[in-house]
Amino acid sequence: MAKKNSASSSEKAKLSPRDERTLGQLVGLADAVVEAAEKRRDPHVDIPTRSLSNVRYNQTKRIIEMGRNTTRRQLFNLSQAKSFMQTLLVGSGCRQLIEQGKTTSIRGLYYLLKHTIEGTKEETFNDQSECDPVIEDVEVILNSLREEMHLYAQKRGDMVGEIVLEDSGDEIDCARMGSGGYGIPSIVEPEVIRFKRCDAKFILHVEKDTVWQRFNEDKFWRKHKCILSHGAGQPPRGVRRMLHRLHNELKLPVYCLLDNDPWGYYIYSVIKQGSINLAYESARMAIPDAKFLGLRSRDFERCSLSPSVRIDLSDTDRRRAKQIAHYPWFEKKKPWQNEIKRMLENGFKLEVEALISKDISYVTEQYTPARLAEQDWLD
Amino acid sequence: MAKKNSASSSEKAKLSPRDERTLGQLVGLADAVVEAAEKRRDPHVDIPTRSLSNVRYNQTKRIIEMGRNTTRRQLFNLSQAKSFMQTLLVGSGCRQLIEQGKTTSIRGLYYLLKHTIEGTKEETFNDQSECDPVIEDVEVILNSLREEMHLYAQKRGDMVGEIVLEDSGDEIDCARMGSGGYGIPSIVEPEVIRFKRCDAKFILHVEKDTVWQRFNEDKFWRKHKCILSHGAGQPPRGVRRMLHRLHNELKLPVYCLLDNDPWGYYIYSVIKQGSINLAYESARMAIPDAKFLGLRSRDFERCSLSPSVRIDLSDTDRRRAKQIAHYPWFEKKKPWQNEIKRMLENGFKLEVEALISKDISYVTEQYTPARLAEQDWLD
Repeated sequence: MAKKNSASSSEKAKLSPRDERTLGQLVGLADAVVEAAEKRRDPHVDIPTRSLSNVRYNQTKRIIEMGRNTTRRQLFNLSQAKSFMQTLLVGSGCRQLIEQGKTTSIRGLYYLLKHTIEGTKEETFNDQSECDPVIEDVEVILNSLREEMHLYAQKRGDMVGEIVLEDSGDEIDCARMGSGGYGIPSIVEPEVIRFKRCDAKFILHVEKDTVWQRFNEDKFWRKHKCILSHGAGQPPRGVRRMLHRLHNELKLPVYCLLDNDPWGYYIYSVIKQGSINLAYESARMAIPDAKFLGLRSRDFERCSLSPSVRIDLSDTDRRRAKQIAHYPWFEKKKPWQNEIKRMLENGFKLEVEALISKDISYVTEQYTPARLAEQDWLD
Repeated sequence: MAKKNSASSSEKAKLSPRDERTLGQLVGLADAVVEAAEKRRDPHVDIPTRSLSNVRYNQTKRIIEMGRNTTRRQLFNLSQAKSFMQTLLVGSGCRQLIEQGKTTSIRGLYYLLKHTIEGTKEETFNDQSECDPVIEDVEVILNSLREEMHLYAQKRGDMVGEIVLEDSGDEIDCARMGSGGYGIPSIVEPEVIRFKRCDAKFILHVEKDTVWQRFNEDKFWRKHKCILSHGAGQPPRGVRRMLHRLHNELKLPVYCLLDNDPWGYYIYSVIKQGSINLAYESARMAIPDAKFLGLRSRDFERCSLSPSVRIDLSDTDRRRAKQIAHYPWFEKKKPWQNEIKRMLENGFKLEVEALISKDISYVTEQYTPARLAEQDWLD
């Protein structure tokens, strides 16, 4: 198979209990194949189906979940043989990463595993788009996050505020991170990140780095005893998982300050309920109690904003807004229906930055403190 | 003009010498207009021309510079009146920011200044694309970086390594930043960032966050006594300015580890010589002594890479490569001509991640140390 050897035992890193578990599951996956072969049965893997038809909204847990449908992938089936082998190849690559105590990106794993199969002209993967879904398959088979398989995603987003944490043995005091902040890592599992001391009472998560800079410059987090984070738009996995851990382990409420537009609603929806594509991760990523602090459709009037700051809704905006209004977790919520209806009636959207037209620090000194004091948010 | 008052004196922040200087220049800009009006002359501003025809490569300084051409913008000229007023409006907005001791994004400034002109239906700016070039105009008029006008850009990129710096009064030990790193701020001028102690001997700047994570995980910067940075692709202004300051003030060589493709060449070109669009900033952003460490067109053979990792050049790649080969700062350099020629002959490009096919840590343990030891780079 792969042209490089597995890590020799001398290279093996000391494994954490979680690594031991993931490794055990990976070995179990391979063992099942060996066992089938020994019993002269067709080797196969059953993969929970990652399609819209197998995704549902769990009303009790209030997260998007996968159903119980699985798809069988067999070695001795011409149309499945390649993806069967790719599945095991990804498993063996992750085993190598865990044993070496190293991590890589999904692009890195692709390069690690890509090679021409001996004696053929066939590539193990033609391009990365063939490898990525197989990584997701292995995640659902093992019920592991890819971070547990030592794979990291793009790294974006920063945080500051009233918390001290330990990252890979280094103590990070997020209250002493200057204007730059602590760059949220891609892998924030407990083996890497430990929370040491927390004086924060809540988390304010803002959409954009530029808004985050305003809040940090005004030291909002010090005055209001909070943690301030951003995810440079749609937050990457590391930021979502960090918020999830802070929320669940330290019992910190999460308030989201996003634009008053369908994209802002969508970002909130992913933070809160999980994403449809990656429904299997919701249990460890979604934060059903997250609140939408603003901007709100009524803010144009409530804050007496200048007509100049309105941005007309496009046809795409209107279509997206209607789709989002029909998401099961918004559909039965009157306040959300009113919110979206009012934006459509307004005919315009509002960015958080629009509040600057009132005053540079209006958002940090008036808007956000008022919403928090009045507990005025959408759920 | 703007509907809000200028900062009252009680709001005025204590100004740094640099703020005093920028403010003086802004006031001077306005004074010239008042003076002209008093003398019953047409008020105007002369703006250094920001077009390709007025950009040249300075062979001695080895940076892209602006020429001496200027364009006159007059108030009493129907086609120039609006942009004349926009110019003064941007000036007055920046004055307000400096006086209040606050910073904002270019989008923030746009919102701050956008309003309907009283008694008309005319907007000061129709959209941000009308405001951004005026900000650049004011930068060149004042010969100030926009950061000095209290405007920040998008914030991207992280750093770690053997340096302790002070950011807004907080001490940041970049050798104790865990897996996340210090998020490089957008404004890194000496008023915000001071270098306290530096044990680094050089800077390794890598293109992508995912590659940066590999180098950080392997603690490359500790073993090789360096600073490790990335700019999430084309580095934003804050990262370029940080590298410039580290290079010039601490005399640290800068080595760039970028992809072997036209985009990698272009990123290097901007770091080294400045960008054509923003030629007026080169003196404080460009690093003519930066080196291109790799990847190199010969690495496919030199490192015995698997044919699987090659990515075919597209027509756009070929066209871009030929353009870049004709940049004046590459045109007379034989090694660069050979480099680009060989890539075109290869017919494929190589990403830094391709080295993972050798071993996960090949890039940190073998490739980069070998290039550094052999002083094998392009200039």
